[in-house]
Amino acid sequence: MSDLPKTVRIKEVGPREGFQFEKGGISLADKISLVDALSDTGVKTIEFTSFVSPKWVPQMSDAEQMVDGIKRGPGVAYEAIWLNVTGLERAAQFRDRLQLRPMFSVAGTDTFMRKNTNRSVDQRIEELPGWAERYQALGMDWLDVGVMAAFGCNYEGDVEPRHVVHVLEKVEEKANACGSRLGGIGLADTMGWANPLQMKRLVGTVRARWPETPVKLHLHDTRALAIANVVAALEMGIDYFDSAVAGMGGCPFAAHKGAAGNITTEDLVFLCQEMGIDTGIDLDAMIEAGQLAERVVGHPLPGKLKAGGNLEKYRARARAAATSGAA
Amino acid sequence: MSDLPKTVRIKEVGPREGFQFEKGGISLADKISLVDALSDTGVKTIEFTSFVSPKWVPQMSDAEQMVDGIKRGPGVAYEAIWLNVTGLERAAQFRDRLQLRPMFSVAGTDTFMRKNTNRSVDQRIEELPGWAERYQALGMDWLDVGVMAAFGCNYEGDVEPRHVVHVLEKVEEKANACGSRLGGIGLADTMGWANPLQMKRLVGTVRARWPETPVKLHLHDTRALAIANVVAALEMGIDYFDSAVAGMGGCPFAAHKGAAGNITTEDLVFLCQEMGIDTGIDLDAMIEAGQLAERVVGHPLPGKLKAGGNLEKYRARARAAATSGAA
Repeated sequence: MSDLPKTVRIKEVGPREGFQFEKGGISLADKISLVDALSDTGVKTIEFTSFVSPKWVPQMSDAEQMVDGIKRGPGVAYEAIWLNVTGLERAAQFRDRLQLRPMFSVAGTDTFMRKNTNRSVDQRIEELPGWAERYQALGMDWLDVGVMAAFGCNYEGDVEPRHVVHVLEKVEEKANACGSRLGGIGLADTMGWANPLQMKRLVGTVRARWPETPVKLHLHDTRALAIANVVAALEMGIDYFDSAVAGMGGCPFAAHKGAAGNITTEDLVFLCQEMGIDTGIDLDAMIEAGQLAERVVGHPLPGKLKAGGNLEKYRARARAAATSGAA
Repeated sequence: MSDLPKTVRIKEVGPREGFQFEKGGISLADKISLVDALSDTGVKTIEFTSFVSPKWVPQMSDAEQMVDGIKRGPGVAYEAIWLNVTGLERAAQFRDRLQLRPMFSVAGTDTFMRKNTNRSVDQRIEELPGWAERYQALGMDWLDVGVMAAFGCNYEGDVEPRHVVHVLEKVEEKANACGSRLGGIGLADTMGWANPLQMKRLVGTVRARWPETPVKLHLHDTRALAIANVVAALEMGIDYFDSAVAGMGGCPFAAHKGAAGNITTEDLVFLCQEMGIDTGIDLDAMIEAGQLAERVVGHPLPGKLKAGGNLEKYRARARAAATSGAA
């Protein structure tokens, strides 16, 4: 395991994924309290809302109020997402307070792309120049390209690493042709198809092709392997992951009731802690945020550490007991 | 990952761990129906009850009726456990129908040993000759030695691999002195302390010392890392695991409310399937058994595959769709 990174960056996506997932609706005050708790954990990026149609996603109709309501943690970047030009325009009004990211997403399969956007992958790539131009107008001359269903798709089955590279090459060619570039790659296991062997194959293939481009992983734990897939990715040197406090959220397009949330932030921080990898996150504070998330959504959430507890506390107690016993 | 085993043996321990864990009590008929469902999955060993004090563990007072009631799957071994001589005598009455196993358990720490048995580890080892004699009288001249809290302990903290080897060496010496031997080693992460790096250290240390002795792992998923720890163990060539259908059960002595069940059998079978490792288990049948387990206990259980589904079904559907689309 000699390639393990020394530090890992975590982007907290629980509020954005989780609030959307909760059909019951969560009060603005509760949403803000959770984001504020996350701001105190040491996590450096929080994706906390979506500028999407209030008609289709009423749970996110308070995006502007969220931007106004949350506190600003020192050194913390606050991100949001959008799916269309209207959403970008709403977000761009807050460019002084949001870290805008030049997102462009494609998918590993046409069918999943169509389910999400009513376009094939090639049709989606035809839209790239318009997005590149909007981002350039905002001062960003690169694209962060996310590949949904990069490991497999419930509609089309396994996705081969060389196909992912092929899609990214088409994206890069189109970006370069309009004065932009491939600035970052996000590989999403949207429907929980990855396993540790395939993780190593896909990451190895992508990094061999773009050795200098940062790669971020976004892993849904639909089939229990997400944390094992993280370890496989760490062994390949990946040092950037999305995760969700308490494991909140899930993919509404995954076509089966088992759609599961992302890897749990506090569980991921714990894994890193135990393997000697620094995340900059206070695990106890993140566990408390996970417990708050559970109270806010009002039902159990999948993360384990909020019940299992930080081993550092048990170690401290054991040391204290050994000392008092020896005295 | 060149050391991955070609095949993995799984011992299903869900009924034994799970029925004990359910305070509400489960009917004999429901228990038998779950064990019978497991008999049809292809799993080759099912640990299905405990011969323990009905006063202390009333949930298991029907052990004899369970032996009488379950069907016998061809090629399936049915196991039970006991904690004292009375329990062994009750089990031994059924030696024609049970696979008796010469169990002897110790712990990685004195405190956990005392919490479980009111004895230190050394005091426990002093009892070994009596157990060896009883097992010899039943035709078994070896011991299957389980080490509880082999990775860490909520009371004493981390457990070093060399300490586990030291305890096992004392056990082996005592066994050899009374005409028995160390026939198998079980390493239990009773309270969820293991991580993938430590897994490789402990397994590597133990296998270096006893290269010919089978090693089985028993992993509780208290802190979300169990399936990642399985992958680390597979990479070290370990090919024998306990697991629990649907993730039922947990350790009643773990001293915190987060006591979690074992790795989930169907999730483990899925991991193996996706990594090209044969378990001999029909994943779909095991998923159905997991769904039955959830109905029997009457509350959600942690396993993911029973909601996420077998990817082979999605692959088959995707192939069929591609064929009909091409026609």
